[in-house]
Amino acid sequence: MESRTGYAVGGTAHAEPVSVPELLARSRTLCTPPLRAAVARLAAPMDTVAAYHFGWIDRDGTPVTGDGGKAVRPALALLSARATGAAAEVGVPGGVAVELVHNFSLLHDDLMDGDETRRHRATAWTVFGPAQAILVGDALATLGTEVLLDAAVTGGASATDAARAVRLLTTATRRLIDGQAMDVAFEQRDSVTVAECLEMEGGKTAALLAAASAIGAVLAGADDKVSDSLQRYGHHLGLAFQAVDDLLGIWGATEVTGKPHWGDLRQRKKSLPVAAALAEGGAASRRLAEELADPKGRGEESEPELAARAALIEEAGGRAWTREEARRQHTTALAALDEVPMTDEVREHFVALAEFVVVRER
Amino acid sequence: MESRTGYAVGGTAHAEPVSVPELLARSRTLCTPPLRAAVARLAAPMDTVAAYHFGWIDRDGTPVTGDGGKAVRPALALLSARATGAAAEVGVPGGVAVELVHNFSLLHDDLMDGDETRRHRATAWTVFGPAQAILVGDALATLGTEVLLDAAVTGGASATDAARAVRLLTTATRRLIDGQAMDVAFEQRDSVTVAECLEMEGGKTAALLAAASAIGAVLAGADDKVSDSLQRYGHHLGLAFQAVDDLLGIWGATEVTGKPHWGDLRQRKKSLPVAAALAEGGAASRRLAEELADPKGRGEESEPELAARAALIEEAGGRAWTREEARRQHTTALAALDEVPMTDEVREHFVALAEFVVVRER
Repeated sequence: MESRTGYAVGGTAHAEPVSVPELLARSRTLCTPPLRAAVARLAAPMDTVAAYHFGWIDRDGTPVTGDGGKAVRPALALLSARATGAAAEVGVPGGVAVELVHNFSLLHDDLMDGDETRRHRATAWTVFGPAQAILVGDALATLGTEVLLDAAVTGGASATDAARAVRLLTTATRRLIDGQAMDVAFEQRDSVTVAECLEMEGGKTAALLAAASAIGAVLAGADDKVSDSLQRYGHHLGLAFQAVDDLLGIWGATEVTGKPHWGDLRQRKKSLPVAAALAEGGAASRRLAEELADPKGRGEESEPELAARAALIEEAGGRAWTREEARRQHTTALAALDEVPMTDEVREHFVALAEFVVVRER
Repeated sequence: MESRTGYAVGGTAHAEPVSVPELLARSRTLCTPPLRAAVARLAAPMDTVAAYHFGWIDRDGTPVTGDGGKAVRPALALLSARATGAAAEVGVPGGVAVELVHNFSLLHDDLMDGDETRRHRATAWTVFGPAQAILVGDALATLGTEVLLDAAVTGGASATDAARAVRLLTTATRRLIDGQAMDVAFEQRDSVTVAECLEMEGGKTAALLAAASAIGAVLAGADDKVSDSLQRYGHHLGLAFQAVDDLLGIWGATEVTGKPHWGDLRQRKKSLPVAAALAEGGAASRRLAEELADPKGRGEESEPELAARAALIEEAGGRAWTREEARRQHTTALAALDEVPMTDEVREHFVALAEFVVVRER
């Protein structure tokens, strides 16, 4: 955790704590206008559907200042450009492109998973129908590539670096799809191994965060060694994020009641705490395996039954293991930063974003 | 029609008629192995779903020698490489990439349109579920870009030309999606104009045929002028193809009965003959408009009612106009070939493929 110590000690021109909300706001200021311009290129009514999904308008078309997500990925993209000494602006096409691909996957995943709300709003497929969710997702993925190729036209990047960025994003997109495919397949199974779960999360969550953490650097002409190290930072950050997300999926409190909602348990989701608990093999672990293999009562478990199941997972060590896993991945992410020469300020920002992503309460 | 006359007159080393089935078979020989290798990269079970969709295995996984489509697009891609004087092999990544994008669109369109059969087999979404159809479609689109970028790695194309090919394919993919979005939107309307219909078909059908007709040339390093002319050939060929398809959609005979099946009329599809008939404005045209605006009996029309509606379209000139439109687009496509210097043999092949695409009976 050298980097984090360095961050705490300070001693640079930027000794005051990094404000992550400010970092994210600055990144949104740079990326949102070109993101909206890209989305505006879509033929009607896809532009409207996309604008609704991004939280820019409500279902009647009225502009809203909604919650379009934290936009961590664009912030990482801009930061990765600055890691090479370039201006944040050089990373903007990368930030826009990863945000487009991220939202392509949200649109399709919500439909596949049958999720009816996202960011406290009705999901696009429930409002505009499945066909629009499929089409707009397809269009956003394609726009991502276009935006990167445009970077070479508008002069922000060389044609070679733009093509390298396309390769980076395309590979990440395929891993993302592989991860979602594994997740969908897991639904039909009673148990998965920890290795399978990590592979799924490495695709579904970590692949795009890895690409986001290097794409600005690639557009700025960074060599493969720098790109690889930054991708490693993003990959392990993604796995840390997902481990925390899996913990919150079981023990996270709802905003309304302040009590755990056991959401992932209700859906019998094969997340890390469950996989780790199943791997442990003791009495609680075996009991958990029996319960998950029992088709009876699926989806109709009472609150006390879910609480008892969460206790079983905890007893079998699933909660502690996942907490430790998040810590390990976070540490490995920060260590990857040490392989890349960058200013203390940029390093502090990477460290602060990692902290922000990993330390969450819901 | 200079090119066709030239073809008919012959006088070159290749005076014997071009065998289109042989052309298509040769192209499949070159493109199918790399296509299968690309699909094999997909994570399970997506590789199986894709192999089923392409007609390589049946639903139990048994290998079959099925009907994977005529593969006209790959043949055009190889031919476009040869138009520049390069070997057909240089166009192979382009042929594979357009075939991947074409099949991405089929997988998603079949799901969106609720179509249950394609090429005489159950569509992938009916066999493997909607989630797999969405995921595999997404993956195939992404693979298309990967295959083109790989062309620079394996040495078949320069990095610059591979990036140009990615741009060509990406733009076409977005137009394809725009066209499908228009088609979906048309379903909610009682009528569309001829201009709207042509715009929709320009996206849904012509955009990818345009890209296919130039992508091999781009990989071989052709300049933009050559690429533009070849794209124009493919664009107008696509519009001619679609006009013929629209005629067959109403008056085409089924294989079983030999009688018209009025398929597009059953679905109240807004195809070119209907749009042209509605634009005419005479008595038959007005009667047709009234019938299409009447929600009563929608989807429950009897055979005689459908035959009467087809007669109305014909009376309002929709059939004749569309036939003439197919002829115009075919002529314009062939004229675009004259702008590109190429051997007589390659030109004859382009002409023969155009003839094959436009002259069909079902």
